[in-house]
Amino acid sequence: MARPYNFSAGPAAMPEAVLRQAAAEMLDWHGCGMGVMEMSHRGKHFGAILQQARDDLRTLLAVPENFHILFSQGGALAHNAIVPLNLAGRHPARAMDFVVTGGWSDKSAKEARRYGDVHIAASSAEQGYTTIPDPTSWQLRERPAYVHLCGNETIHGVEFHTLPDLAALGCEAPLVIDFSSHVLSRPIDWSRVGLAFGGAQKNIGPAGLTIVIVREDLLGHALPHCPSVFDYRVLAEQDSMANTPPTWGIYVAGLVFQWALAQREGDAQGLAALELRAQRRAQLLYDAIDGSQLYVNLVHPAHRSRMNVPFFLRGDDGEPLRDPNHPRNAAFLRGAEARGLLQLRGHKSVGGMRASLYNAMPLDGVQALVDYMREFERQA
Amino acid sequence: MARPYNFSAGPAAMPEAVLRQAAAEMLDWHGCGMGVMEMSHRGKHFGAILQQARDDLRTLLAVPENFHILFSQGGALAHNAIVPLNLAGRHPARAMDFVVTGGWSDKSAKEARRYGDVHIAASSAEQGYTTIPDPTSWQLRERPAYVHLCGNETIHGVEFHTLPDLAALGCEAPLVIDFSSHVLSRPIDWSRVGLAFGGAQKNIGPAGLTIVIVREDLLGHALPHCPSVFDYRVLAEQDSMANTPPTWGIYVAGLVFQWALAQREGDAQGLAALELRAQRRAQLLYDAIDGSQLYVNLVHPAHRSRMNVPFFLRGDDGEPLRDPNHPRNAAFLRGAEARGLLQLRGHKSVGGMRASLYNAMPLDGVQALVDYMREFERQA
Repeated sequence: MARPYNFSAGPAAMPEAVLRQAAAEMLDWHGCGMGVMEMSHRGKHFGAILQQARDDLRTLLAVPENFHILFSQGGALAHNAIVPLNLAGRHPARAMDFVVTGGWSDKSAKEARRYGDVHIAASSAEQGYTTIPDPTSWQLRERPAYVHLCGNETIHGVEFHTLPDLAALGCEAPLVIDFSSHVLSRPIDWSRVGLAFGGAQKNIGPAGLTIVIVREDLLGHALPHCPSVFDYRVLAEQDSMANTPPTWGIYVAGLVFQWALAQREGDAQGLAALELRAQRRAQLLYDAIDGSQLYVNLVHPAHRSRMNVPFFLRGDDGEPLRDPNHPRNAAFLRGAEARGLLQLRGHKSVGGMRASLYNAMPLDGVQALVDYMREFERQA
Repeated sequence: MARPYNFSAGPAAMPEAVLRQAAAEMLDWHGCGMGVMEMSHRGKHFGAILQQARDDLRTLLAVPENFHILFSQGGALAHNAIVPLNLAGRHPARAMDFVVTGGWSDKSAKEARRYGDVHIAASSAEQGYTTIPDPTSWQLRERPAYVHLCGNETIHGVEFHTLPDLAALGCEAPLVIDFSSHVLSRPIDWSRVGLAFGGAQKNIGPAGLTIVIVREDLLGHALPHCPSVFDYRVLAEQDSMANTPPTWGIYVAGLVFQWALAQREGDAQGLAALELRAQRRAQLLYDAIDGSQLYVNLVHPAHRSRMNVPFFLRGDDGEPLRDPNHPRNAAFLRGAEARGLLQLRGHKSVGGMRASLYNAMPLDGVQALVDYMREFERQA
């Protein structure tokens, strides 16, 4: 029986092959007589799982050797505090610059205010987070502890398709990116990044696992009140074993990494294949929205997310219907669920609909959504 | 085929029925078309899972209504920082008293020093953590922010079989207990406890999930640099949804809670049945150790742990053999593994052997271990 298509923004759909393997190995991993949840994290079996997962992620994202890959916990929201606890100390007044392009970077900036002097270098709040301010207009300070941006805004559907070159903008600081919701969908230009972090529960694996990739020279500046197990230097020195790591999450993430490495589209393999698919999925849905009279996406076309597509049905007056309980929205969601198109309701702060198109979403799923949208429009 | 017996100290063996159910539901939870890892944490399905898990834990541990049950992340080591970040502010000088009875409470005290004035009210360090100092000898301050103890020392095998009555000892402070490694094996006298916390990966479920049970009046004292998602008041107000919770861990813990509620031993059911089994397992192993010439457990009999039994083989001179690579220890471990008795190697800081006897360990497993120990002794 075919599974429904799950458009959840996260925790989100996972590759069926990964779920099947995790189920099959639940009581006995590779003949060792224990399931992965039952293994000591210090034993040889889990040691092999951890190392393979880290090596595969390094391969997938072409992470240079001078960056550490850390497996932590707490999600992006916890690391909104943990990143400044680790990096703010690089500047004597704990100066941190933020680029705010949606709900997530806004949350990051607010949490960082607890730990130092936060400056909003740019914001698209006045545009309702539907665009990304041109980097040449950013009011960056010369040498803050770091500059933060959110690579892909899961709620507002805005994505950086190119990372800024801070040095070229006159700012001598490492760039920190929250890559929670588009990691593994595109390459990362590590020459422009000092630290990348994200929760796993969108494009990687189970909620609870948090991945941090940090350049070696940024370690060692933790503030005195940073909890030991969240000091990235301690995590790096102890091989992500400063405390018991979320072993199941690392195992499942590792299965996703192996799945990702094996994907092919024509000549493209691994991350290149995943990026090609992400482009095709997004193109199919945005074309359907733009070609319709009923649906609308409000994000500037140059900054639209490939991963999270918020869209609205229009009311009879042509205006976007934000209220999820409006009868037209409710009818749309009911019909979608009846066709096995799940979790399309928009985020409460934006309303309307949102289709999240992560790596585990096949093109057929987007086609099914587009077919349904056209059918609904004809009948509306 | 019978599974091997897994004596890991954590992550540890889980009930086979729980693992089978988790595997069976991996792709489709209760016919909703999604696996648990794929569900939005804000949707109705996961909402039901979370509420059931919390209600069942409240029933199992008889948690009074004025205590909040919180699902967090980071493990006990992270909460060694997060507890003082939440409670130290109850005292103007951030005074905190610690009772140190092993490696875990020692770590807790050291981490708390980052956040205030730590006073060691009692310690068994000079006795090699083989006993618990009599509470009437503790040097408690009159009114610290709180008093911390570790209910069961996983590494040293020392357990509080009765919690102290701080008020009767002249101390007006809430008692904080780390219950990581004996939760669900005995009742908790909540009249003597203000806050209990622990990682799930020993007697409950997967690593990464951390459970905090806190009395209502202790919320609201977080220090300014406490990360928002680790402020227990925020977690309580937002129903453990301040950030995306470790959904898989909560689901599996919920399956364990249901399994626990259904357990029976004679007239005993639920927690009472689990406690009875814990007593029987421990008795069987300690009797075998005490009745032998080869094996020795160094903990004072009144304070021996039911959950974690560290023991040593003696050398030809009668002294405990701590070095895990001593030929006799190596031979013991090899023979054990060949008989399907796994993860018996002691903690690196103690050496020798350790058998962890959590709820998922059947009495047959302990009998198999005891049989093997006798066989090995005859041949030694």
